[in-house]
Amino acid sequence: MRIDAVDFFYLAMPEVTTAADGSQDALVVRVAGGGHVGWGECEASPLASIAAWVTPMSHGACRPVSASVLGETLDGPADIARMAARVAYDSMDLLQAAHTWSGVEIALWDLLGKAKGEPCWSLLGYTEAHPKLPYASVLFGATSDETHARAKDIRAKGFRAAKFGWAPFGEDLRADEAHLEGARAGLGEDGILLIDAGQIFGEDVEAAALRLPAMEAARVTWFEEPFAGQAYGAYAALARRSRVKLAGGEAAHERHMGLHLIEFGGVGYVQIDTGRIGGLGPAKAVADEATRRGITYVNHTFTSNLALSASIQPYAGLASHQICEYPTGLSTLARELTTTRIDPGEDGTIRLPEGPGLGVDVDPQALRDYAVNVEIKVGGRTIFAPATP
Amino acid sequence: MRIDAVDFFYLAMPEVTTAADGSQDALVVRVAGGGHVGWGECEASPLASIAAWVTPMSHGACRPVSASVLGETLDGPADIARMAARVAYDSMDLLQAAHTWSGVEIALWDLLGKAKGEPCWSLLGYTEAHPKLPYASVLFGATSDETHARAKDIRAKGFRAAKFGWAPFGEDLRADEAHLEGARAGLGEDGILLIDAGQIFGEDVEAAALRLPAMEAARVTWFEEPFAGQAYGAYAALARRSRVKLAGGEAAHERHMGLHLIEFGGVGYVQIDTGRIGGLGPAKAVADEATRRGITYVNHTFTSNLALSASIQPYAGLASHQICEYPTGLSTLARELTTTRIDPGEDGTIRLPEGPGLGVDVDPQALRDYAVNVEIKVGGRTIFAPATP
Repeated sequence: MRIDAVDFFYLAMPEVTTAADGSQDALVVRVAGGGHVGWGECEASPLASIAAWVTPMSHGACRPVSASVLGETLDGPADIARMAARVAYDSMDLLQAAHTWSGVEIALWDLLGKAKGEPCWSLLGYTEAHPKLPYASVLFGATSDETHARAKDIRAKGFRAAKFGWAPFGEDLRADEAHLEGARAGLGEDGILLIDAGQIFGEDVEAAALRLPAMEAARVTWFEEPFAGQAYGAYAALARRSRVKLAGGEAAHERHMGLHLIEFGGVGYVQIDTGRIGGLGPAKAVADEATRRGITYVNHTFTSNLALSASIQPYAGLASHQICEYPTGLSTLARELTTTRIDPGEDGTIRLPEGPGLGVDVDPQALRDYAVNVEIKVGGRTIFAPATP
Repeated sequence: MRIDAVDFFYLAMPEVTTAADGSQDALVVRVAGGGHVGWGECEASPLASIAAWVTPMSHGACRPVSASVLGETLDGPADIARMAARVAYDSMDLLQAAHTWSGVEIALWDLLGKAKGEPCWSLLGYTEAHPKLPYASVLFGATSDETHARAKDIRAKGFRAAKFGWAPFGEDLRADEAHLEGARAGLGEDGILLIDAGQIFGEDVEAAALRLPAMEAARVTWFEEPFAGQAYGAYAALARRSRVKLAGGEAAHERHMGLHLIEFGGVGYVQIDTGRIGGLGPAKAVADEATRRGITYVNHTFTSNLALSASIQPYAGLASHQICEYPTGLSTLARELTTTRIDPGEDGTIRLPEGPGLGVDVDPQALRDYAVNVEIKVGGRTIFAPATP
């Protein structure tokens, strides 16, 4: 089939705060072709990503992402790989291209799945989609008591695993120790406890290492993003000193970056956001490499159930890579975006929705309710205006 | 002083083609503070980079670049480093931020230099700016005869070094051999010959290795970007097999990426574009590391003399790192942008212009003549409109 149209929907909550909550806005992509429609989501700045789609060409290696997609044919996974290679080459100098392409790539897989009546994980080569063990992904409380209460609440809701992240973690050693103790106490002895430092230590290995004893005492399963995403040397140095495995990779906007964190950073868990790395294709390549190297692949996602489904597809078939990020504090925007819900079952696990492609239906009402009106004019000509939901 | 205003000027030639000529458009940044004005240039997609400056915040780690700059104080290099750290952290999830910030960072150094009456290289810690040996940077001819003619022409113009790049190189082995022979013959026996493959081999080490005998026969000094910018494994594999040193790094949009290409890619020349890596600060850090490791730092630049001056500052004080990219086929836009010219002297070398900051004056007439009218509206409010030159 021919790719007839690609539309972007910039959605946002009425108020966006500085909280580390990625569900406060969204960039949803709709791709149409062969009488079908596919959906994807970029985990990215909506305006900058839209600009990378419509921008005038700067030169042969700095073309808009649209130039590699519109009018192309899509009949199988190889066509998506071909477009990905074109984006990588023809948009080489357009930095934002990877984030824009991610949402488009996901929508193309969804479209392909719908056209073939096949789920994305099957198109990726898996024969089965295994259930995943969701961890409730929340921010630390302002105090350790608040963190303790959040942990208890998560456990009461039926989650066996929880991840606490970002500020105030990293600001004060004693406070951090109290947060870790509070989280473990609230979660119970058999809960899986994960910690996300949100890159707070930059490249300061010693500062991060100071938290290791308390991490070990609280039996933390992984210590996520202690450092800047590409500070592989710092990751490797901490990994050598830590009995708690490191995790990272969410910032990867290119397959190699995921692979490097494994090879050079020594992480035990590689976390990939399909909405940033270039979609399902490169995420699957990282999952393959993780399997070869005996480390664990984990999805990264902090937005809608559309993005959640996309984030699970690349490792859906890996039974032993069981843990799965599952954001619980979603904005109303992210909740209302999909009519399909991915909820934990009675056994505490989640399963990908039935149905072809991503198996997720988007609610056009949400596209209207949260629409941000964007108009971009270049040389007097409107090159971007909102599409009709 | 306080940073009072930051303005972006999107300039373009009337017609932009798919040629690998980065001077067909430009994004120039003007920073005003303390009664002085500083100038910088992003080597980037203008529209996407403007969007990353003005975009509404998505969440705390995806703020516009402007949020880390406007209203800040600038009294010394530490203030620039502080803003750089804020951009890296608060715009962590805004991929394009690095390209936007690069031009702003350069303009801040220029502003600081003008306020202090000191050149940027001095602010960076060097005691002297050494002359550089410019290589004429051109594209391969369509035929080997054309490449030969270009090489002769470059030599006739007084250049001792030349770099040939991009298509059709990499398409056909025999043709490539003829191009290499032609380039060497045209340049003369004592000319310095550099080859830029423009990432054409992806990660195909064997395909790149097929060119090595002809490279050695033509006494090529470096084989640049045989592979995708982050395919460190491929670089390392080829480096082990090659007597010709590899070069790369122009795509680095973060200090670590330059360092990784040295550490994991085994390049002999690390090429940094200050208009992409985040400006002079991170480029200087890469130059320091190159010195420590005994490899050679080279600037990357394919745009105006404003960008050229910025690209040389981070290694101006390194006498033995002599070779310097010097684009010769600039568009009229890039030529007319500056009234200051950096031309080779009678000894064939170039020197940074005298004067504080970058030492380059921008011609406001060029800002008017090549202006691209851009307007971005979000929620009915105009968040970007062109500034007055």
